[in-house]
Formats: sequence, C-alpha cells, structure tokens
Amino acid sequence: MKEFNLISRIKSGITLNDKSLIKGIGDDCAVIQESNRRLLVTTDAFSEGTHFKRKYFTPSQAGAKAAAVNISDICAMGGIPRYMFVTLGLPKKDSGAYAESLMSGMIKYAENYGVVLAGGDTIRSEKIFISVTMIGEADNGFLSRSGARPGDRIFVTGCLGDAKAGFEILEKKGNKNLKDFEVLPVKKILIPQPKFAEGRLLLMSKCVSSCMDISDGIISDISRICEESRVGAEINAGLLPVSPSLKTAAKINKKHAADYALYGGEDYELLFTVPESKLKKFARFMCGYGLTFFETGKITAKKGVRVIKDGRTIKENYLKAWKHF
Amino acid sequence: MKEFNLISRIKSGITLNDKSLIKGIGDDCAVIQESNRRLLVTTDAFSEGTHFKRKYFTPSQAGAKAAAVNISDICAMGGIPRYMFVTLGLPKKDSGAYAESLMSGMIKYAENYGVVLAGGDTIRSEKIFISVTMIGEADNGFLSRSGARPGDRIFVTGCLGDAKAGFEILEKKGNKNLKDFEVLPVKKILIPQPKFAEGRLLLMSKCVSSCMDISDGIISDISRICEESRVGAEINAGLLPVSPSLKTAAKINKKHAADYALYGGEDYELLFTVPESKLKKFARFMCGYGLTFFETGKITAKKGVRVIKDGRTIKENYLKAWKHF
Repeated sequence: MKEFNLISRIKSGITLNDKSLIKGIGDDCAVIQESNRRLLVTTDAFSEGTHFKRKYFTPSQAGAKAAAVNISDICAMGGIPRYMFVTLGLPKKDSGAYAESLMSGMIKYAENYGVVLAGGDTIRSEKIFISVTMIGEADNGFLSRSGARPGDRIFVTGCLGDAKAGFEILEKKGNKNLKDFEVLPVKKILIPQPKFAEGRLLLMSKCVSSCMDISDGIISDISRICEESRVGAEINAGLLPVSPSLKTAAKINKKHAADYALYGGEDYELLFTVPESKLKKFARFMCGYGLTFFETGKITAKKGVRVIKDGRTIKENYLKAWKHF
Repeated sequence: MKEFNLISRIKSGITLNDKSLIKGIGDDCAVIQESNRRLLVTTDAFSEGTHFKRKYFTPSQAGAKAAAVNISDICAMGGIPRYMFVTLGLPKKDSGAYAESLMSGMIKYAENYGVVLAGGDTIRSEKIFISVTMIGEADNGFLSRSGARPGDRIFVTGCLGDAKAGFEILEKKGNKNLKDFEVLPVKKILIPQPKFAEGRLLLMSKCVSSCMDISDGIISDISRICEESRVGAEINAGLLPVSPSLKTAAKINKKHAADYALYGGEDYELLFTVPESKLKKFARFMCGYGLTFFETGKITAKKGVRVIKDGRTIKENYLKAWKHF
C-alpha cells in the first residue's frame, strides 16, 4: 500500500463516494465496513505475453481486461463486485504514460461495474503484469461449482468460440482494417463483458445448482464443475451457440465452428446447471428479462466429460483446452 | 482463482478450521462471512532483485517475508490479520520444488499470525514475484496515519537500522559463517517479525494519535505521517534506539549507527505518536506488558522533517531514504 503515487495521481481526479470504504489509498490498509454480509474475494493475474500482447492491446484495454476477468469471477458466484486492489509490475520504460493509461483504463472500466480502486502497489518487472484482488458482496447466498447433480441440464449465457477466433485474427493481421465479421470476435477478446445481470438473476432464480464463468473453454470448465460436484457431463456440440461471425471466420480457416466453441477460452460467458425438476420454474422466472440461455448438455453420474458430435460420443481429453496466448 | 494446483497440492495437507471462511480455494472466489466488522485490506508485492535476492534468501524465507510485510501493514493499524490471497510469478524452472518451498514457508509463517491462505493465482514471469493481498479485521477501531497533531511525541517500538546492516552483511559475505554481531541484523532482514501485540495494545490504549510501520526508514515514514496529518516533525538522532550489534557493524564499516537508524528501511517496527496530554495514561496502560517503546522526537506545526544531530538541526531531504535492494 506504499509507493503508489501513480494511483494517487490518477485517483486525485476521482471523487470517492462510497460509504463502506472508510479509508482508501494513503494508509497501511484500506478499511471496509461491512455489516452482516458475506464477502467474495478473488485474485487473478494478467501478464504480458501470456494474457495480452501489447502489439494489439492498448494499455487501457489491458488494464480493463485485467479488471474484467476478476469481475467475471464475482459475477459467476452471483455477487456484486465492489473493491479492487492492484499490483502492477512495470518495466522502467513503461512507468510513465503507459502505466497511467493502463490504470485509468482499468479504473474507468471497473466503474461501469460499480467497482472502486481501493489500494495497490507497483514493482519493477521485466514484463508488464497486473495482479488484481477483487472483493465483492454476496448479499443473498452465492452460486458455487459444487452443486451439480446427475440429470441437471447444462446451460451457457451466450455464444462461445468468438474470443478464440478474435485471438487468431489479432495474431494474423492485428487490430487494423477489420472486415465486418472480424469486429465482434476481436471485441470479445479485447474487451470482455462480465455477465453481471445474468449472475444476479441466476442466483435470484433459486433454480441453479452450479455456476462458473468460461475462461478456459467449456470443456475445460465443465470438467471443473464435475470435479467439484463429483459428477460427469455430456456436452452436445450441435447445441453450442455460435455467432454468424464465428461461422464465417471458421469457414475461412477451414475449421469447424464447434471446435472453437468447445475448446476456445476467454469468452467469459457463464456456464451453469439447472435440475430437471426446476426447468419450468427457471424458464418462468427468466421470462421477460430479455436474456438468452442455451441448453448444451447434461450432468451424468458417470464421471468424465463426453462430447456428442455428429452422432458420435467422444471422451474428452482436457489437455486440449485453451492455453491463453 | 484458477490454475492454482500448486496451492491446492500444498493445502491438501492443511486442515482448514475457520468458521468465517465459508469457501476457500476451488471456486471462483473465496467467501468470507463477516458480521458487523470492519475489514482492513492491504496489497504489497515482493520481487526478486528489488525485495529479495535468491543467493541468500531461501525460497521459504522469501515466501515468509512476503507474508510478513503485509501482516505488518495490518498490525500497523491495530488489526488482526486473517486471510491472504497470493499471486505468484514464476520462471518456468522454479515452478516445481522452489515454488512449493516458497509457498509452504509462506503458509507456515502466516499461520503463526493466525493467517489462512484463502486463494491465489500463478503466472509465468522472468523473475519471481509474490503479490499478496492480506485481509484483516478491525474489531474495535483502527490506527491511522492522519491523526498526529503539533506537540505529540514520536515513538518507535524497537531498534532501528539493523535490517540495513543485515542487508550489507548479506551483500558482502552472504549468509554463511556469520560472526556473533552479524546474526541479529541478518535475521532482521531475512525474517521480520511484525509487531502484532504492539499494534493491538497501541490501539487498546486509546492514547495513540497516529501509527504506521517502518518499511522505508523512520525519516521517510515519518514524512508520510506528516503528509497525511498535515504537520511536521523533529527527530532526535541521539534518542534513536540502536542495538549493540548495529554499533559494532557500523564501527567496522566506519559509519555512524545513527545513519543506519535514520535512513535504513525494512525494520518493521511501529512508528507512532502520543499527544502530550496522554503520555501518563499511555505509560500507565503499557506498564506490565513487558514491551518497550522509545521516544525519539515530536510533531511540529512547522511542515517538513528535521533531524537534531550533535546539537545541530538538519532539514531532511527524503530522497536519501532507503531504496530496498
């Protein structure tokens, strides 16, 4: 919490008006007043080379995405993101304008989700990294990975595979002169939109047995739900929602859109399960909110993850999963 | 909160028995239940080269010290450290035994202070870094940097300058074949002991107007209290507590022990102020706890930090302050 002049400088322009944050930057610790609530805390690090490349991420986008992946973790549990604490690793040459732009991009993005920067530290490092600790509130229970039971249906909140296609486009041609079908995939990898409203509604529906966000791809992530819930899963590749943009991108690359949807990561959609007995109640509850949910498979008593594709069942090898950049 | 298999592996041998920690590692976020309490949150990063060198820090000591500097921030506010979240940046070659040893050293050290590892992340990096977010409780108010007023007396909880002497010894000859007078300074830089009991008692005394921990040296750190409290300070160099070991080390180096005490950092003693009107009450309260406190100067209305040394008053230039390694 020391030597964070950079943040102080940026924050001096921002008015803090958060009654729970009794002390922010400027003391040994931030002080948060919470009465009778549960807190959700998550830590995710975001680094140059592994999670972003500066040749096509602006500093502001890199900062925003580091906040986004942490906000997404809070959303995946149905919580309300509130405070973030940031450690910034910086090469000497980037400690001026680059760092200011990164932090101000991060702060502005986070504000859209009601998140306040409450503290941080900077250190010298050879490559840029952004380590974020995000604190959120769980005011009315929370969703977890461990409640899936055999027979539960598996859902996702939106199209999968776009982020992977966006990644390939950026690697191949960068962020300039994008064709129409390239815009959405590139936006999805550069500026993810955590599913805040969706997470809150899934929690409020009281119909959801397990939930997480898709950061490593549906196959890899459903296997985590299976592990925590001690069950297995069947994913129907034909039911995975894919965007028209992804279909075009896949076709040009002579690949199958379903493979992007199955193994591509970083879409930050929510992956959740609903017991069969609650499907009607769930549909009734969600009706009218204008959100879409796609059923893509079911939980099984038999362990392991299997994919049904073109009528055949394939046992999945998780090692195929998305390995970020 | 993903891909932290290393931590999961280490934690599988540890029994968690903390009723407030409802969910730990294994979900998107850790869940902490707090009723009607204030939380203290601090983030400090600790990196190879800048904060430790592996030629004389064992991995276990590096992990312990990263926890210590964060625990110290909680102690400086009179709080109870509770949960830590860790991002570990690792070169590929260190992701095995080195990382396990680092994390297990950190977990064991933190346990001595009642701190539980509640989550984390690992990323690939060229040099090792350890970014820690520590959450503590403030059950009965907290100490801050902003309450010092002119006339308040300035105190420290123990000897200053040893860590700097220890650092010089390590740089010169490493950690082997230490002479008697070298043992304490080296221990102070390698394994700091945050002043938990002191912080709690300072808070309970209700006599302390400001407090922080000394990480960058008393001159640099009192200037932060002055800044937050909008006051100045006078430090009496002759009153700074120095250990016999430091005196010997300084003599050998043909330097003044007082210069180590004034400008050396990383001692992690507490620096605090007591209004003159409360000095007697403070002495009565502290009597019998077996702790020592050293009066070293006073707060002034005149801004800036001055040192009284050999009868002369010197205006301090903060740039002289300790720059870690």
